[in-house]
Amino acid sequence: MQDDSSPLPLALTVGDPAGIGGELTLAAWQALRAGMGEATRIGGRSPVFVALDDPDRLDALALSLGRAIPIEVVESPAAATAVFARALPVLPIPLTARTVPGTPDPANAPAVLSSIETAVRLARAGQVGGVVTNPISKATLYQSGFRFPGHTEYLGALCDVAEAPVMMLASPELRVVPVTIHVSLRRALAELTTEEIVRTGLALARALREDFGVARPRLAVAGLNPHAGESGSMGEEDEQIVAPAVAALRQAGVEARGPLPSDTMFTPRARAGYDAALCMYHDQALIPLKTLDMDGGVNVTLGLPIVRTSPDHGTAFDIAGTGRADPGSLLAALRMANEMATRRAHPGA
Amino acid sequence: MQDDSSPLPLALTVGDPAGIGGELTLAAWQALRAGMGEATRIGGRSPVFVALDDPDRLDALALSLGRAIPIEVVESPAAATAVFARALPVLPIPLTARTVPGTPDPANAPAVLSSIETAVRLARAGQVGGVVTNPISKATLYQSGFRFPGHTEYLGALCDVAEAPVMMLASPELRVVPVTIHVSLRRALAELTTEEIVRTGLALARALREDFGVARPRLAVAGLNPHAGESGSMGEEDEQIVAPAVAALRQAGVEARGPLPSDTMFTPRARAGYDAALCMYHDQALIPLKTLDMDGGVNVTLGLPIVRTSPDHGTAFDIAGTGRADPGSLLAALRMANEMATRRAHPGA
Repeated sequence: MQDDSSPLPLALTVGDPAGIGGELTLAAWQALRAGMGEATRIGGRSPVFVALDDPDRLDALALSLGRAIPIEVVESPAAATAVFARALPVLPIPLTARTVPGTPDPANAPAVLSSIETAVRLARAGQVGGVVTNPISKATLYQSGFRFPGHTEYLGALCDVAEAPVMMLASPELRVVPVTIHVSLRRALAELTTEEIVRTGLALARALREDFGVARPRLAVAGLNPHAGESGSMGEEDEQIVAPAVAALRQAGVEARGPLPSDTMFTPRARAGYDAALCMYHDQALIPLKTLDMDGGVNVTLGLPIVRTSPDHGTAFDIAGTGRADPGSLLAALRMANEMATRRAHPGA
Repeated sequence: MQDDSSPLPLALTVGDPAGIGGELTLAAWQALRAGMGEATRIGGRSPVFVALDDPDRLDALALSLGRAIPIEVVESPAAATAVFARALPVLPIPLTARTVPGTPDPANAPAVLSSIETAVRLARAGQVGGVVTNPISKATLYQSGFRFPGHTEYLGALCDVAEAPVMMLASPELRVVPVTIHVSLRRALAELTTEEIVRTGLALARALREDFGVARPRLAVAGLNPHAGESGSMGEEDEQIVAPAVAALRQAGVEARGPLPSDTMFTPRARAGYDAALCMYHDQALIPLKTLDMDGGVNVTLGLPIVRTSPDHGTAFDIAGTGRADPGSLLAALRMANEMATRRAHPGA
């Protein structure tokens, strides 16, 4: 029986069909169906999802893995909630080419992109609570004319947002947001500006309030240089670029501290003092997250009009089709999207 | 009763007398004396040390902290082992100015440096097994004409080594060595060379064999850029600078792997596959170490003719004199120096 606070089903995209996405989708359904009705952390329900995938390939994959998983085609996401208890609900996105695990095929790129586009459309129309994406292979998509730097930027374009979306990685121990992301360290140094740190910090603070239920978010802002520059003796960026950004965030009412020496800001004691860490470059954010992460972090896109999460791993072509892939990160991504969607549906709850 | 394999006592320097060094020295003696006779990890004895310190200030400090700690002046390190069971043995280095916890005084700089010089002299003469240093305040020493970038470089000069010593940080979970250290990130990018990575990697492999008992050291070499540059799409340094260094290390018989994406190389599973991580810059090495570190990492100087370790924290002037400082890292530094000295005294044991 459902009550009024039941969130909508989530849309789960196909990802690269030659990657581990399919077996993770199957494993996630099994795990969530087994746990249906259990309360989640914020007192809501266990997530329900609809796979935007090819039902025949999921069927064949389940068979090849020796798993008895009933697949049921649905016409709309609305039907998914009722179906979920007895079968994996699939909104069909037919693949063009036969799937060979580990061997990506550019012929399937249109279906991969169609799955993402459909998910975003359903989310914007309020038919699903949010979008959870399985990993894609950028190299394969590029061969078919895809021209976005990654998933996140593509979603930004599909959502018509003018500013670049912000990437957050979250685990039970730590939330991190890198200000510069998939660029060389040299380019990260060249691109880092006070304005971009402030913009990212404001998007982060807003998301913590609206999507994560943190009434008064505390941000720890990492310094760029060792020891946060040690008063300028090891680089001037911390005094000239980062410190003014911290001051501007505080001016805007955000409880930000920094620039902090990045080597000591992720100890257990330090982590207890903030809700998220704002980092200056990719590895400064991802090293502590993945070093601590036992169970699978979640990639959350902030600054979109829709909820979007994804596991923090890739397509893992090397183990695709073996059933060895760990669904922990996808499950965490589904649970987090479900919590975020619930909070958006019931602000202040 | 001592057997032939008993290591020599270690020399423990005073550090900045206004910092937490004094109370750590007292706490370390209490802890080690309580555990005397207990076997250490490699089957040797618990470490014994002689403090190169001012006996009167240690006496006064113990009194002010309400700890009954007998202090005994010794004429030489040889006497320290017998004394250690009943009192904290001190080889006197008189301070010039009265110590005020939290308020460093440049007038004591000559004594601070004399303690380090004496420790090195005793180690080189084979009278102590190694040198463990309490934290110094570079800013205070600079006011009295000290002109080395840090402790490590000063020790290199005292030991007449031509090449810059190599800094290793070690905890029970992880050993890391940064190739570039206390320079801005911008300067680290400019200074990183294949030659320096190879030199550091060779020093590390040698130390793992000789001082840490690792017969065939496995090194994980971090990439510089996110995803180790992703085949050059995010920076060329990984292909042009790091990869040739890994090849040269392998050519030299070192089991080195890399360049590895630095965000995934410190997960528990990844750490199980190597003995030490060779990192390209300060925070790439220190973030994972301090994020994991529960108990206090140890700073080990490689490439010296003597054994030298130190705790991985600073003078902590803000809590000096309160007795709140945690001696965990100093104890780990003493235990590690003791193990290294034992291995050097009995190679192959």
